[in-house]
Amino acid sequence: MKIDKDKKFLIVGLGLLGGCYAMALKKKGFYVTAITKEQADIDYALAEKLIDNGSTEVSEALIKEADIIVFALYPHTFVEWIKNYGNLIAEGTVITDVTGVKGCIVYEIQSLLKPGVEFISAHPMAGREVSGVKNADDSIFKDANYIVVPTDKNTFGAIETCKELGEILGFARISVLNPEKHDEMIAFLSQLTHCIAVSLMCANDNPGLVLYTGDSFRDLTRIARINDEMWSELFLSNRDALLKEMEKYKRTFDKLYECVKNNDKEEMRSMMRISTERRNEFNKKA
Amino acid sequence: MKIDKDKKFLIVGLGLLGGCYAMALKKKGFYVTAITKEQADIDYALAEKLIDNGSTEVSEALIKEADIIVFALYPHTFVEWIKNYGNLIAEGTVITDVTGVKGCIVYEIQSLLKPGVEFISAHPMAGREVSGVKNADDSIFKDANYIVVPTDKNTFGAIETCKELGEILGFARISVLNPEKHDEMIAFLSQLTHCIAVSLMCANDNPGLVLYTGDSFRDLTRIARINDEMWSELFLSNRDALLKEMEKYKRTFDKLYECVKNNDKEEMRSMMRISTERRNEFNKKA
Repeated sequence: MKIDKDKKFLIVGLGLLGGCYAMALKKKGFYVTAITKEQADIDYALAEKLIDNGSTEVSEALIKEADIIVFALYPHTFVEWIKNYGNLIAEGTVITDVTGVKGCIVYEIQSLLKPGVEFISAHPMAGREVSGVKNADDSIFKDANYIVVPTDKNTFGAIETCKELGEILGFARISVLNPEKHDEMIAFLSQLTHCIAVSLMCANDNPGLVLYTGDSFRDLTRIARINDEMWSELFLSNRDALLKEMEKYKRTFDKLYECVKNNDKEEMRSMMRISTERRNEFNKKA
Repeated sequence: MKIDKDKKFLIVGLGLLGGCYAMALKKKGFYVTAITKEQADIDYALAEKLIDNGSTEVSEALIKEADIIVFALYPHTFVEWIKNYGNLIAEGTVITDVTGVKGCIVYEIQSLLKPGVEFISAHPMAGREVSGVKNADDSIFKDANYIVVPTDKNTFGAIETCKELGEILGFARISVLNPEKHDEMIAFLSQLTHCIAVSLMCANDNPGLVLYTGDSFRDLTRIARINDEMWSELFLSNRDALLKEMEKYKRTFDKLYECVKNNDKEEMRSMMRISTERRNEFNKKA
């Protein structure tokens, strides 16, 4: 499906990311509707012109008229929704999502959908430490990555449509990974980093930290402000991959700990040189 | 000593921080000189008007004319310098520093100085991932913390002078800690965070990370680009305090690991709520 200007979007779940999608799509002139739980969020989105129409009911009319439906729900809520209402989706509709874990939902949802409705999964690698449609701000997509996550069942056409959506939303880099590779990557890049930030913030209860801090502690704990309901679900939905990355990281941290303990300056410097080199490469590509 | 406009500054060690001090002081109209190893750094600083005069020799004239001398050297180099040339410093001179560890140098340097020369230590909590006077940029002081680190030997007057210097340099918050508290705080806020960043970057050699990353990984590894010579010395100079903070953090991280392993969602969420609350407090004060 080519995403021309007459295509209609439905966002299911008008939270932070759903709101950012709506904002970006409306700015590009698309017709956008939303289904979400709270009337206040619909009212806000209508007032701010983030959507053209919306409902707190699972409105068959909104579902039927949509060409592309974007699900911006928690993983288990997404699966429940498809089980309960998936049959309302019209043939020819492309559905996509923003879910942060893939293996545990993508195959199940694809198997629940009727023929003629294609689910092509995507992960917009952008977020904020605050939630809700009121904090929506599509500028978070500008320097961010967008990962399309197809399975063997997906068609080339849907993958292309999903990439096109990433471009329309304004992402900086668009790539493609299968669900297993995605989950492994995300366990390391996103979930492990949140584990570290939470642990670091929990490790010290000194209320005077702010007086003495430098930028490094500020940077490392920005994401320690975390939506505990969502992230605990994301962690447990990707448990095996996350445990593996936590173990790898623990071994590396322990190695550095041993260097300090044993006054092993040379090994310590060698680790620092590796980290510097890798981060330099990272900067070059970014 | 009140820092009026006719006071003369000498910077010993014209690297990144020495250069930032020179830049900030010159902008305020002070007379600033420098002693540093490389002629190229003197030439650059003169050309950029960061200093009024400079030498690669340990110039007695520059030392004698200075009212305030700022040492911006590695810890062991600072101690060596005072051993070799401390006798050249004129009575009435106040000396200060930018060293990132205190317990291992402050007492020794105070004991090496002749009566009438007072060393009041300070730690400007600012830096960049790049080094050298060519990267000097005094805007890094704007939102940063400045810690004055006196011992029992210091006079009230010198502590006030040092605070005034922090204000002149443009720091956002100025506080006072004794060397032991400083080292404990820095082990947690600065050294541990660098340990984490280095470990995280060393834990994964996937060259494709940049395609899939979100902001969190970028933030957590910015400081993984690290001056290995300086930081290995800082770590080992503050070894006991750092080991203690690394152990505390490891225990917290292990607790979170056990939560994931045991599917203990409630305990996980409770840790996330603590981290969120603490980071919220931190934001409020910052």
